[in-house]
Amino acid sequence: MSDTDAIDRVRAEPGTVYLVGSGPGDPDLLTVKANRLLEAADVVLHDKLPGPEIIDALPEDRREDVGKRAGGERTPQSEINERLVELAREGKAVVRLKGGDSFVFGRGGEEAEYLAAHGVPFEVVPAVTSAVAAPAVAGIPVTHRDHASSVSFVTGHEDPDKDESAVDWDALAATGGTIVVLMGVGRLPDYTTALLEAGMAPETPVALIERGTWPGQQVATGTLETIVDVRDEDGISPPAVTVIGDVAGTRESVVEFLRNERPSEEGGSDE
Amino acid sequence: MSDTDAIDRVRAEPGTVYLVGSGPGDPDLLTVKANRLLEAADVVLHDKLPGPEIIDALPEDRREDVGKRAGGERTPQSEINERLVELAREGKAVVRLKGGDSFVFGRGGEEAEYLAAHGVPFEVVPAVTSAVAAPAVAGIPVTHRDHASSVSFVTGHEDPDKDESAVDWDALAATGGTIVVLMGVGRLPDYTTALLEAGMAPETPVALIERGTWPGQQVATGTLETIVDVRDEDGISPPAVTVIGDVAGTRESVVEFLRNERPSEEGGSDE
Repeated sequence: MSDTDAIDRVRAEPGTVYLVGSGPGDPDLLTVKANRLLEAADVVLHDKLPGPEIIDALPEDRREDVGKRAGGERTPQSEINERLVELAREGKAVVRLKGGDSFVFGRGGEEAEYLAAHGVPFEVVPAVTSAVAAPAVAGIPVTHRDHASSVSFVTGHEDPDKDESAVDWDALAATGGTIVVLMGVGRLPDYTTALLEAGMAPETPVALIERGTWPGQQVATGTLETIVDVRDEDGISPPAVTVIGDVAGTRESVVEFLRNERPSEEGGSDE
Repeated sequence: MSDTDAIDRVRAEPGTVYLVGSGPGDPDLLTVKANRLLEAADVVLHDKLPGPEIIDALPEDRREDVGKRAGGERTPQSEINERLVELAREGKAVVRLKGGDSFVFGRGGEEAEYLAAHGVPFEVVPAVTSAVAAPAVAGIPVTHRDHASSVSFVTGHEDPDKDESAVDWDALAATGGTIVVLMGVGRLPDYTTALLEAGMAPETPVALIERGTWPGQQVATGTLETIVDVRDEDGISPPAVTVIGDVAGTRESVVEFLRNERPSEEGGSDE
C-alpha cells in the first residue's frame, strides 16, 4: 500500500494520548502507524529504550525525555502519568513512546488505566516486541513445531516493590516450552540456577541477543550450564534478551544463510 | 523518519527469500520494512491469514496464494518450501508473507531451516504478533505490574501429527501469568475445562477478540466458567485470540476512553 494512504488514515488527534511501541530498535521495524504518529504528534514522551536511531530522528523541540530526572534517578511512573494528562488537557496530540511493545512489560497498562480514570481519550498502537524480534533476527523462532508448542515471556528486572517469588521458574520449566527473559543479563546466574534446580536439562540450548536489530547487535550461545561463562567471556551487556529452549539451537543450522545481521563496528559475535 | 530513507535502506535482493510477518491485519500495523518489501518483491507467497485489507492491496500478477490447493485442502508445508527455493533459484526477490509474526506459530522456523539446507539466503522480518496486538487494541495489556509477571502463548489448533498432550495446561496454570491462546475458538471448552481442573479460579477473567485490528473486530468478555456460553451467545468465530488472566479485566476500566475500536458493520460487541 502507498504511504499516501497512510497519511490520510493516520491522524494525531488533539487532546489524545497514543501509547506507541517503537519495536526492537531498528527504525524500519516501526509500524507504518507509529512512524506517522511520530511525525504528526505535538510532543513525544520517551526514555532511552527505543534506541538511538529512533530517538535521534525525533525533532528536539517536540520530544521530552522522561527516562531520567536531573539527579540521574528514574522518573517515577506517577510523574509520567500526570504529565500525559496535563499535555492532553492542553489540547496536544501526545505520543508516549516505549521500547518494544507498551503492553509487554512496558507499563502501558498502568498508563491506560490512569488516562481513563482522568477522562483522557487514548489509543494503543501495538508494536513488534523485542521478545520475538531479537531472537528472530538471530535465526531463532520462539516456537517450532518440532521443539516448542508454547513460549513464555518474563522479565529479569527485579521490581523492588515486589515479592521476589513473583516469577515461578518451576512452573515455567514444567511448561516444556520456550522461555524468553527480557532484561535478563544481570540476573542470568539466578534464573539459570533456578531452572536447573527445577529439573531442566543442563544441555538445554540458551542464546543471548544483545541490542537485537540495533547496529552492533551481538549474539552468544551456550547451554543452561555454560551460558553464564559465555556471557562473561563475550562481554554481553544490557539491553539483551535471553532465549532458553531447544529453539535456540536453530541458529546454528541457519546462520550461514541468514542475512539479518547488521554491520557491527566491533565485529564480535559467536561466529 | 521519512519514507525516502526507508526506500534507500530497504531493498529486495534477487535470489533471496524474505520471511515477513504481516502483523495482526490492519495495514497500518505492517512494519515500514514489510510495507517496502511487499512493494519491491517480485513475488509474494501468502495464505488468507494476513487479512483482506493487506492481501487485496497486493498486485495480482505478483502474488501466489499457497493457502489452499485447487481441491480445497491445505497446501502441504513441503510444497511451499520447495516453491520458495525454486523461485529464489530463478533469481526472484521472494516474500513469504504470514499472518502475525512468522516465528510465533507461523512455521517460519521450518522454512528458515529448509532454505538454509538448500543454500538459499534469507532474511527474517519480525512483525507485530496478534497474541499481543489483538488484546492490546481491546484495552488488555498481556502483562501488568499488578496482575501478571509473565505471559505464555499457545495455539489452540490441534496438529494431527502431534501428541494431544503437547500443551501442558497444568504447568501453564501454575505460572500464575497471563495465558494467550491463538486460534482457540473451537477448542475453548477443552482448555477452559483443563485450566479449571488445574485449579485456576472459575472467576478468572477471560476475553475473546475476533478479527483483532480488522474492520468488524468483536470483543466478548466473561470468566473461565462463563466464556463458552458467552462465545456461543455472541457468535464469536475464528480467527480469534483468547486472553486468560486478571489482565482481561482491565478492558472494563478503560474501554470508555479507548479509541482503538474500528467501525464495524454489524456493531455487535460487549458494550
